[in-house]
Amino acid sequence: MKSEKYMYTGKGNLHLNDYPTNSKEDDVDKQEIIAKFEENIKEIDDLQEALYANGKEGIIVILQAIDAAGKDSTIKRVFSGLNPQGVTVSNFKQPNTDELSHDYLWRFNKVLPRRGEIAVFNRSYYEDVVTVSVHDIQKSYSMANRVLDVRKSDFFNIRYKQIQNYEEYLYENSYRLLKIFLHVSKDTQRKRFLERIDKKEKKWKFNPNDLRDRELFDKIMNAYEKAFENTSTETNPWYIIPADQKWYTRYLFSEVLLKTMQNCDTKFPTISQETLDEMQKCREILINEGPI
Amino acid sequence: MKSEKYMYTGKGNLHLNDYPTNSKEDDVDKQEIIAKFEENIKEIDDLQEALYANGKEGIIVILQAIDAAGKDSTIKRVFSGLNPQGVTVSNFKQPNTDELSHDYLWRFNKVLPRRGEIAVFNRSYYEDVVTVSVHDIQKSYSMANRVLDVRKSDFFNIRYKQIQNYEEYLYENSYRLLKIFLHVSKDTQRKRFLERIDKKEKKWKFNPNDLRDRELFDKIMNAYEKAFENTSTETNPWYIIPADQKWYTRYLFSEVLLKTMQNCDTKFPTISQETLDEMQKCREILINEGPI
Repeated sequence: MKSEKYMYTGKGNLHLNDYPTNSKEDDVDKQEIIAKFEENIKEIDDLQEALYANGKEGIIVILQAIDAAGKDSTIKRVFSGLNPQGVTVSNFKQPNTDELSHDYLWRFNKVLPRRGEIAVFNRSYYEDVVTVSVHDIQKSYSMANRVLDVRKSDFFNIRYKQIQNYEEYLYENSYRLLKIFLHVSKDTQRKRFLERIDKKEKKWKFNPNDLRDRELFDKIMNAYEKAFENTSTETNPWYIIPADQKWYTRYLFSEVLLKTMQNCDTKFPTISQETLDEMQKCREILINEGPI
Repeated sequence: MKSEKYMYTGKGNLHLNDYPTNSKEDDVDKQEIIAKFEENIKEIDDLQEALYANGKEGIIVILQAIDAAGKDSTIKRVFSGLNPQGVTVSNFKQPNTDELSHDYLWRFNKVLPRRGEIAVFNRSYYEDVVTVSVHDIQKSYSMANRVLDVRKSDFFNIRYKQIQNYEEYLYENSYRLLKIFLHVSKDTQRKRFLERIDKKEKKWKFNPNDLRDRELFDKIMNAYEKAFENTSTETNPWYIIPADQKWYTRYLFSEVLLKTMQNCDTKFPTISQETLDEMQKCREILINEGPI
């Protein structure tokens, strides 16, 4: 269990450069890790069934990263085995006109899971404090002057506070948040971009605009640091997971997910003696219908 | 303008008994008030058009009251004249299974207005701290033990804080909340219940269960007092409006709504010289199509 060291609960300043982007310093064996990942997935599968049957806690997985960090493939590999009744994945691209006419949490609220379910957010409202800040998009919002005519730092400090309150609200309403940042090196991003351009079946994933964001690499990292510093708590920490090796990313992701599910109320519902007695009567009725 | 005296911003303890349920102490002339109401409605109508065109602020009207206080008829009379494109009314009855499986704000988030629009909530999440508390419904919730195994007062104190944060969030996101409690006397409720039972066209409005809540009158008022004390702020105050005379209720409601709209960003969008010039060219093209 190496995942603890990647947890950030908001204590002290955050320097993403201090967090590894690969498995080197953990000194692990790749084959062993792959085997452990498979075990984890089996356990997650069992726990999901109990979580669903119990219906007392919901899980919201928030996945953030820069391009080519492996968000899509991680989601695919970790969640493919699970019963899709009880798991939803929402992919948040640029907000549309209707979404921009509402408060920025509106489109996320719409797809919150029922208790007992897991919702995965591929990108999230953290874009509203990272991408929006980096590109100064807030200037174009159609909002009252009282909201927009403030210093830029104040505008985003208010959003950090709102996000912290929102996540606290969800936790207090019987949800668990799992916030994961896939931490990829600039070098690995370069290799993956080149692969997308060069391989026929990967070309569709490349967008020339991706290079524009790459130029802003440091600025984006800085915006993430500020956002994580202001929204990480003991209850709702951020996990900054190395993302240069997909097999290691997946494993750490599964560790954190498993740990979260183990903390959940996942006992199968207990059935009262009264109901059990009634069930026995039902059994008799079914038996008495004739030979099976 | 009598509405200021009915505003409660959370300063000091709240005693609903200190607030009038009729117009006596305001010493007003009924015909004058009715005429003023009609004027207000006209002005509200104009402002709604500007609010919609401008699209920078949204208004959320929250209406709470005990049975027979006049919620439905007030909504009907105040909002009937307005352009329904831009006004929605949502009536919140007991939550259904799907709603109970989510966080309690979920069903309200789904119907939040776009900026530029008005949403009216006929009952609201205040039921989740009043009705739920009076009838101890929280005990039946399917939630994790960590949420439910707390003192009752703690459970609701947490909800008050959540509601205050939520309303602050909405205000900071370019919405205005208008929270109105229709304050009816127990005596007037009795008369209106009898009228519902006796008049043929009103019988459908009566439900024998209403008398059960009437027995809990003091307990319900007490729950409202606590809720208002813990959720009223300078920005999001509660208005406790006398509701024994419908003509006076409507008038005060229209006063508060009008004041809120006047505070909103309701200038028609300004059009740049460039766009105006382009518009003139379009004019020429249309003119040149031939004689009108």
